[in-house]
Amino acid sequence: MASSVPTKPPTAADVATLAGVSKATATRALGGYGRINEETKRRVLAAANQLGYHPNAAAQTMNTGRSGSLGIVARGITNPVWPVAFQGMVDAARLQGLAVLFAGSGFEVSEERKAIRLLLGKQVDGLIVSAADRRDVEHLQRITAVGTPLVLWERRVPGLDAPVIEADMRQASSELTRRLLDLGHRRIGFVSSLAMPQAAYSIGAELPASIIQDKVEGLFTPFSEAGIAPPVDLVRFPERDRDAIAAAYHSLLDGPNPPTALIASDSQIAETMLDVVRSRGLRIPGEVSLAMYDDLSWARLVDPPLTVIAQPDYDMGKCAAELAMNPAGASTLPSFSARLILRGSVGRAQD
Amino acid sequence: MASSVPTKPPTAADVATLAGVSKATATRALGGYGRINEETKRRVLAAANQLGYHPNAAAQTMNTGRSGSLGIVARGITNPVWPVAFQGMVDAARLQGLAVLFAGSGFEVSEERKAIRLLLGKQVDGLIVSAADRRDVEHLQRITAVGTPLVLWERRVPGLDAPVIEADMRQASSELTRRLLDLGHRRIGFVSSLAMPQAAYSIGAELPASIIQDKVEGLFTPFSEAGIAPPVDLVRFPERDRDAIAAAYHSLLDGPNPPTALIASDSQIAETMLDVVRSRGLRIPGEVSLAMYDDLSWARLVDPPLTVIAQPDYDMGKCAAELAMNPAGASTLPSFSARLILRGSVGRAQD
Repeated sequence: MASSVPTKPPTAADVATLAGVSKATATRALGGYGRINEETKRRVLAAANQLGYHPNAAAQTMNTGRSGSLGIVARGITNPVWPVAFQGMVDAARLQGLAVLFAGSGFEVSEERKAIRLLLGKQVDGLIVSAADRRDVEHLQRITAVGTPLVLWERRVPGLDAPVIEADMRQASSELTRRLLDLGHRRIGFVSSLAMPQAAYSIGAELPASIIQDKVEGLFTPFSEAGIAPPVDLVRFPERDRDAIAAAYHSLLDGPNPPTALIASDSQIAETMLDVVRSRGLRIPGEVSLAMYDDLSWARLVDPPLTVIAQPDYDMGKCAAELAMNPAGASTLPSFSARLILRGSVGRAQD
Repeated sequence: MASSVPTKPPTAADVATLAGVSKATATRALGGYGRINEETKRRVLAAANQLGYHPNAAAQTMNTGRSGSLGIVARGITNPVWPVAFQGMVDAARLQGLAVLFAGSGFEVSEERKAIRLLLGKQVDGLIVSAADRRDVEHLQRITAVGTPLVLWERRVPGLDAPVIEADMRQASSELTRRLLDLGHRRIGFVSSLAMPQAAYSIGAELPASIIQDKVEGLFTPFSEAGIAPPVDLVRFPERDRDAIAAAYHSLLDGPNPPTALIASDSQIAETMLDVVRSRGLRIPGEVSLAMYDDLSWARLVDPPLTVIAQPDYDMGKCAAELAMNPAGASTLPSFSARLILRGSVGRAQD
């Protein structure tokens, strides 16, 4: 049974007393430095173990300037692919004996700035940042300026000297479009929640997130290659909100020349896409073909199963962490492919 | 453009120089303590801001014994409800200006022990632990012994003086069984991945996780109340592995007196349950009724939609963090209900 009276954490001095050695000797044994007799060392470590001694990380940080932790700042964590990437980061950190310091930014640059200040103040040994907006990044430049290794997660930031871990979204997106073109589709609608509901999309326009830009441009490239005008009027960037996303899909389907295929830029958007298509009684893929980015396991469980573009989230997370902890270790930045997985939700366009 | 030559992070001395004050004055202004002229304070803070000065957390921790961080040790993070609870914890920590120190235990007590040692060494101000096994908890008792506030996540630990944040699984489970009994079901199969494949379940048996025990016993109580022998032979605890879980469901359905209703103790198990039922060509709910714990959004998207037992993960996460950061703040531990949501996957038992 645990005592309910809290006791003070044991100190190196307590360990020294129990082991019957001087504090200087105990400190050397615990720190693993200096010359020390093997038998004495064994006695000190046994005493430390018996007392439940934890080395004081703050003192270690003062001495070494390293805190033994990896910092992660993420825009959103409830996207169901995030935990897979996060697991990769956590596993890599654990292998190196580093703790993970996490701070969410909730998609807001102001919160991101606070989160980075907090983690830099804790002297993290490296930082992974999934940037909220690539147009507002002075605080990111400061990270590299103070010499803390920075790795960007899935979003490139212009002018920032930091590696980016991302999958190649253009190639897999183009592959999806080529397949859709083969099946007779010309009107392909794309929805991503960039909170720019009024924006009329044009090819080459700079979007706040490079990954979204890659997806859209990847989808449109095969149109241009085939000499067909890409359906830029079928791109929507609503708020990150179920009602707004549903309204975007309805507006596409209510238009004068509606899409025969719909694409969702992530699985949370795809849930709403499915709801809208079903609520309108449209047959899949008979009346509309569907696809989404991210291979969530439920994509196989719905009827018909959903066509997806998958990326290796776990491996990417692991790689991001390794690079942030040991930037000198990577001579070349690894590249990750995204993969088109065709399933029953994609079929021939209606005549 | 960021410079590629790293510069040293600015110190309090740099701030003092720029502000034209002594280092002692700058330190007082930056620390917010001691007597200091308002105008001087303003000048120091402006200089700190201009230089991008971050207070050195290690020095602060040395002075105060508090690190300004909340520690979280979790068994598994890829369960898709985890990020929702985690978001609640992160949001609560952010409101208090605390960072979140995260360490995964990967379901292993040895890893949990390491993770806790790591976070205690970093002098977290409070700890939330989702314990790997309630039968091996000496290291948890040590947390309370050193006076670090501890909150247990969803798993009670006998003899440990720490609050537990959990939803009441017994009541909602019993409600599900009563509904199934009304519909004529007597053979109800339950699968949870406790990695005890050989164990024959008996009511009252102590399971490694209190939440699983609550679920099973909650499911069986209405049998006893109705004077019907509960189907203890239809409980399976396979390894946490897709093939093992599938084998468990197949063994139930291949038995001499197979279940007419199947229950999965979480959504990841439910994915495999659905795969097995579909691969055997069983009609849902005509030939078998299905239900799962956790209300993932895909439960509504499959055909027929799945009956679930839901719990308020976000609110529970927020509450756990608040309690770990301010244990004196809660006079009574809040209780959380789980809720049965009946959907099309539950129907009348076949005659």
